[in-house]
Amino acid sequence: MAMKKKPVTGMKDILPKEMAIRDYCIALIKDTYKTFGFNSMETPCVEHIENLNSKQGGENEKLIFKILKRGEKLKIDEAKEELDLVDGGLRYDLTVPLCRYYSNNANELPSPFKALQMGNVWRADRPQRGRYRQFMQCDIDILGEPTILAEIELILATTTLLGKLDFKNFTIRINDRRILKAMAAYSGFAEADYDTVFIILDKMDKIGLNGVREELLKEGYAEDAVTKYLELFEKVTADISGVQYLKETLGAFLPEEVAENLKTIIDSVESTKSADFKMAFDPTLVRGMSYYTGPIFEISMDEYGGSVGGGGRYDEMIGKFTGQPTPACGFSIGFERIIMLLLERDFEIPGSKNKTAYLIDKKMPSDKLLKILEQAKQARAEGQIVNIAIMKKNKKFQKDQMITEGYTQFEEFYADSFEG
Amino acid sequence: MAMKKKPVTGMKDILPKEMAIRDYCIALIKDTYKTFGFNSMETPCVEHIENLNSKQGGENEKLIFKILKRGEKLKIDEAKEELDLVDGGLRYDLTVPLCRYYSNNANELPSPFKALQMGNVWRADRPQRGRYRQFMQCDIDILGEPTILAEIELILATTTLLGKLDFKNFTIRINDRRILKAMAAYSGFAEADYDTVFIILDKMDKIGLNGVREELLKEGYAEDAVTKYLELFEKVTADISGVQYLKETLGAFLPEEVAENLKTIIDSVESTKSADFKMAFDPTLVRGMSYYTGPIFEISMDEYGGSVGGGGRYDEMIGKFTGQPTPACGFSIGFERIIMLLLERDFEIPGSKNKTAYLIDKKMPSDKLLKILEQAKQARAEGQIVNIAIMKKNKKFQKDQMITEGYTQFEEFYADSFEG
Repeated sequence: MAMKKKPVTGMKDILPKEMAIRDYCIALIKDTYKTFGFNSMETPCVEHIENLNSKQGGENEKLIFKILKRGEKLKIDEAKEELDLVDGGLRYDLTVPLCRYYSNNANELPSPFKALQMGNVWRADRPQRGRYRQFMQCDIDILGEPTILAEIELILATTTLLGKLDFKNFTIRINDRRILKAMAAYSGFAEADYDTVFIILDKMDKIGLNGVREELLKEGYAEDAVTKYLELFEKVTADISGVQYLKETLGAFLPEEVAENLKTIIDSVESTKSADFKMAFDPTLVRGMSYYTGPIFEISMDEYGGSVGGGGRYDEMIGKFTGQPTPACGFSIGFERIIMLLLERDFEIPGSKNKTAYLIDKKMPSDKLLKILEQAKQARAEGQIVNIAIMKKNKKFQKDQMITEGYTQFEEFYADSFEG
Repeated sequence: MAMKKKPVTGMKDILPKEMAIRDYCIALIKDTYKTFGFNSMETPCVEHIENLNSKQGGENEKLIFKILKRGEKLKIDEAKEELDLVDGGLRYDLTVPLCRYYSNNANELPSPFKALQMGNVWRADRPQRGRYRQFMQCDIDILGEPTILAEIELILATTTLLGKLDFKNFTIRINDRRILKAMAAYSGFAEADYDTVFIILDKMDKIGLNGVREELLKEGYAEDAVTKYLELFEKVTADISGVQYLKETLGAFLPEEVAENLKTIIDSVESTKSADFKMAFDPTLVRGMSYYTGPIFEISMDEYGGSVGGGGRYDEMIGKFTGQPTPACGFSIGFERIIMLLLERDFEIPGSKNKTAYLIDKKMPSDKLLKILEQAKQARAEGQIVNIAIMKKNKKFQKDQMITEGYTQFEEFYADSFEG
């Protein structure tokens, strides 16, 4: 009857202290995004194995937790490979399920559909510190909105949320896939080389301009093209005038509306933001996923080296799945990283210090117990946290323990002196 | 690239309307239970297959979604049976994971530990209407509290929640496993026969006193015993005096404190309840799980034939797993059934009718857009729901659609007339 006490490899038990912060954040996220008109939605954690293996998931498709067929469908003797044994898997992201959901339910959904998804995903990654095989993702997506109203609302909603969590001085870096392409085209790179060029460009913040130059040359690209390309990055600035500079320089290489739209996004967000952050145009921002088609963006925080969220426009993905072209744009926050940052800075949940403990005599007569329960009822109805506990022999130790749990007020009830 | 559009068999996509109610309930449950001092906790959805197969799960162990081993550990050629292929499974309840969690983390948890768990569980049941293979469970448990303070607080917390959801006129039926046993012993049944007797007794509400008599006799039990047993049920009333009657009649068959404790639970809850329901002593209440050791209870609602939740004391289960005897008591609400009932009676989420849509001209100049965004920012900061949408050609149809989503106020912004 002995039990394995530890959770399965790479997954974790969540203790009350972390859980309180998670609950607080989940409620705040839902409340905040709802004020922007987003609709909560949910898909099953288990997805068809065929959908998970549909090549949209990239490397994640290698990390699927697969689910064994059941009953007569499972034929162990005849099985030659994994796919003979399984019919489902745990989802590795919320994007594949969103596509399936939208294609299954579009008739019953608003148009445009502003979706909010929070849910666990699973990846059988090599376990490493701070990364788990089950983790929460939090995505907002606007499906069916072709204009930059989508980008503006997604960025405003996300940054408003971060502001409510007391995050300050962060940066939303923004770029557009079409600017990336136009800069490469203008410099003379062949379209077939774009992906390789962008992978090298993506290292700019680590290896700098000269590092990028060296790697591009090592890859065998013409020195003229490399020089022309890097000159653009030397001259461009991280703001609206940087966008304007590229618009003028790239000319016909850049579709006319791209620069104007990007400027409007930056300007609109800067002018109406409700948190303390800045928008930065970053022509070196690449973002890995090849499905992006327009503006792309990422949240950078000094407190945390990497990105704590990002997104962009992916106008072609849903149509590929559904056959129905549907413009789409999304923004995902790194929920687990945000929780980690809040835990590290001992984030205090508003109102969490107002917890009361009633310590009551073990032999409290039932008529007196009623009075105590009545008093607790009144306080709880007002939203106060009241924990009724049997008084222990070592009362001081008991209280010290409860203080570490956030109890600040104590009331003691003794059977012989308490009259109710 | 075509995708399977439907969710996997027996699981469902949750549409915004249901999701809004679920989100509301989840937040209300967490808020309400927290005022009673419960701590939110979470375990991974994936559990060791050994723990899931530990015989605590009863029939549910036949319904496990099992997870394929990965990498070198998976040896398809050598596999003879399922257990050679799998190392984990999706949890089928929250009780097995709670035991594991408590044994893994007891040192870092308060004592007693008041746990609140909400999470999905999975059972590969035969699909049927209204029952799904993925569903949410919602359990509160108090571990380490031997007194009836646990039972009282669990029932008060659960009923307070139901009251906040506008449920009325429901009944908490309560009994005690030791009363069940004492009634059988007093009547002359052998201990080895109790389980069979209780299974028949459990049908009382369906087949009545005479039906129970017939089935007991058919099972071959002595007529004397059956008559004596059923006489008890004829004379007992569904209140505290019923408990008193059994106390006096059963005498030494019933441990002394059992009846007094039950009376105190009923009286305390009746006196300090904050919802419109009644407590009923029900000596025919059995509850299936054999692990219960003391008081057991169930929520009955007229609106819904069956039980919409239940629980009881299980003082021996945790010790079996951990080796450390730990008194325990829990109450689980049928989350999915409650959501179903709320949907059926068109439950209106407080504040949900205060939704505003801004319909804006497709060609809104960016300086005017700023004014609109600024206005939305102010309203959203006050908690209002504001959805900014591009005005469609068929504006009437667009508005009618939005009205079905709960939008009651519309503001229209035209590029040529709007001055900001």
